[in-house]
Amino acid sequence: MVPVRLASSMATVLLAHEKFPHRAKTAVSILRYADDDVVAVLDRANAGRSVHDFLPDVQNAPIVSGMDEVEACDELIIGIAPIGGGFEDSWRADVRTALERGCDVTAGLHSFLNDDEEFRELADEHGCELTDVRNPPDDLGVSEGRAGEVDAEVILTVGTDCSVGKMTVARELYEAARERGEDAAFVPTGQTGIMIEGWGNPIDRVVSDFTAGAVEEMVLERGDHDYLFVEGQASIVHPAYSAVTCGILHGAMPDELVLCHEAGRETIHGYEHIEIPPLPTYVERYESFAEPVHETEVVAGALNTRSLETDEGARSAVGAYTEALDVPATDLLRFGPEGVLEAVL
Amino acid sequence: MVPVRLASSMATVLLAHEKFPHRAKTAVSILRYADDDVVAVLDRANAGRSVHDFLPDVQNAPIVSGMDEVEACDELIIGIAPIGGGFEDSWRADVRTALERGCDVTAGLHSFLNDDEEFRELADEHGCELTDVRNPPDDLGVSEGRAGEVDAEVILTVGTDCSVGKMTVARELYEAARERGEDAAFVPTGQTGIMIEGWGNPIDRVVSDFTAGAVEEMVLERGDHDYLFVEGQASIVHPAYSAVTCGILHGAMPDELVLCHEAGRETIHGYEHIEIPPLPTYVERYESFAEPVHETEVVAGALNTRSLETDEGARSAVGAYTEALDVPATDLLRFGPEGVLEAVL
Repeated sequence: MVPVRLASSMATVLLAHEKFPHRAKTAVSILRYADDDVVAVLDRANAGRSVHDFLPDVQNAPIVSGMDEVEACDELIIGIAPIGGGFEDSWRADVRTALERGCDVTAGLHSFLNDDEEFRELADEHGCELTDVRNPPDDLGVSEGRAGEVDAEVILTVGTDCSVGKMTVARELYEAARERGEDAAFVPTGQTGIMIEGWGNPIDRVVSDFTAGAVEEMVLERGDHDYLFVEGQASIVHPAYSAVTCGILHGAMPDELVLCHEAGRETIHGYEHIEIPPLPTYVERYESFAEPVHETEVVAGALNTRSLETDEGARSAVGAYTEALDVPATDLLRFGPEGVLEAVL
Repeated sequence: MVPVRLASSMATVLLAHEKFPHRAKTAVSILRYADDDVVAVLDRANAGRSVHDFLPDVQNAPIVSGMDEVEACDELIIGIAPIGGGFEDSWRADVRTALERGCDVTAGLHSFLNDDEEFRELADEHGCELTDVRNPPDDLGVSEGRAGEVDAEVILTVGTDCSVGKMTVARELYEAARERGEDAAFVPTGQTGIMIEGWGNPIDRVVSDFTAGAVEEMVLERGDHDYLFVEGQASIVHPAYSAVTCGILHGAMPDELVLCHEAGRETIHGYEHIEIPPLPTYVERYESFAEPVHETEVVAGALNTRSLETDEGARSAVGAYTEALDVPATDLLRFGPEGVLEAVL
């Protein structure tokens, strides 16, 4: 676990071709939470528009079709992560241009920039850093089952599927707790959280024997805060990624869970032959899975209502979600984090 | 997934210092199941004795204190895997001697022989192969949730803890099915199974995002047999390794489970602060975890009674285990695999 990038006010460009905003969660979260000064978003499908056309509540930036149209920047961040986490060749020209202009390039992909010969040569030639935040440190080990010993109240976000808002909800709660004057810290477990915080172990890229251990290490390291908000990953019912979810759940030994869901989602994204089970069963699934290692409780729900146009529709969906889980719930971005924060602190 | 070693009748030495036989499961399984001709076991704590003093039902070999006492061999296998999977320096002299005498060396550790400069130089100098069976191939990817499509009946062994007999039970059932003339295959997921079969993905060493995918790949590859016996790993309640268990369970999409347990085990081995939950809850835990991805059922139980001296005591423990699970159960090594095989086929 090492600092991976300077999370400071750099002039940053976010690559999000054909995915902005709804399939570009890294880009959107950097716009929302990071200290970076975002000078442009690259999305050839939305060139000419601006971030605020889609997301009025984050920092604004022009959307352009490629690095050629960006005047000056310090860093290009790959702001999308396709299923499988590979580098797509249609991004190559932008990365090449960035490096030729002396910009650092940062990615959270499974395939590493540093393994690409052309990029390595260009980076050497132009004095740039290539940072792969998903490349875990070499010194990870197995969990000792000790995260439960920390003084902090550990709160983990868990989900019904991928891309429902676990990072966002953990981040919103963390920031809201700090605004209230609470002594809180954020434990990042994925590329986006790591980019925002500037440190962390990329749990989905860790050797599976060390999954829990890599989370435990971070919880022990930050355990002297009063509250730790741990970013969860994937879902306990996910056909491909449940190992990551389960390793985090046993490794972090959380005291409380916040269950995240997206309104209207009925099947696992990308695995449409697999249905999302009834919502109340998730409470039972997560609690009973955790229990032999460390008892925990779903204390609140977070519903992502981005697909619902009206606040009225969103409110009604939140009502149904609250009833299904039988705990306080809201859409933290749409209606504010207060209700859920109360349930958590 | 590639062939990793010639699983043939080599003159093999098994290193198992201070762990033979009860904490040397790789060594014991090679003695029991592999085609290797084992010429010696290295265990300085038991030098002068023989394998049959401890295990009368596997191939016999003398136990000696080090490679110096071995006359001739083709291959040295590290037959123990400590928690964490590191290489212990007290084994170095034996590996060095083996290489100097032209023997290949094979290990299933997390730390790779091929990363050790001294071993690499000696291997080059003496024309030996260093094989790390726990080094996964580079081309693994995420699961597509498709293992359920194979024609084969997929049977997975699952456990209450590590080292309770999941590999052994899968292997016994596979061999017994073949003896009956059934068209069966074995899917190895750990270092021991891979050493015996000569191929396979070491699931506990795979990137956690690819855990399920690396199992799915093997099931799809062997799916044209009538029965696939998949070696499970660790346990759904294990504080460090549950990610591996869960990735295999969702990746293999098994039709049937055999729940393995060791008589008398009350806490998680190496994590004595964590109790083994009541046995019937494991049936519910495994079935309900698997269900959203692929429905499955615990159809039989396997009880490891090695700690019980008398057959009478073992029979009584098996009776209690059968009652707790409410499915047919036995100790397959002690009483034969038939009862459980019937329940599975």
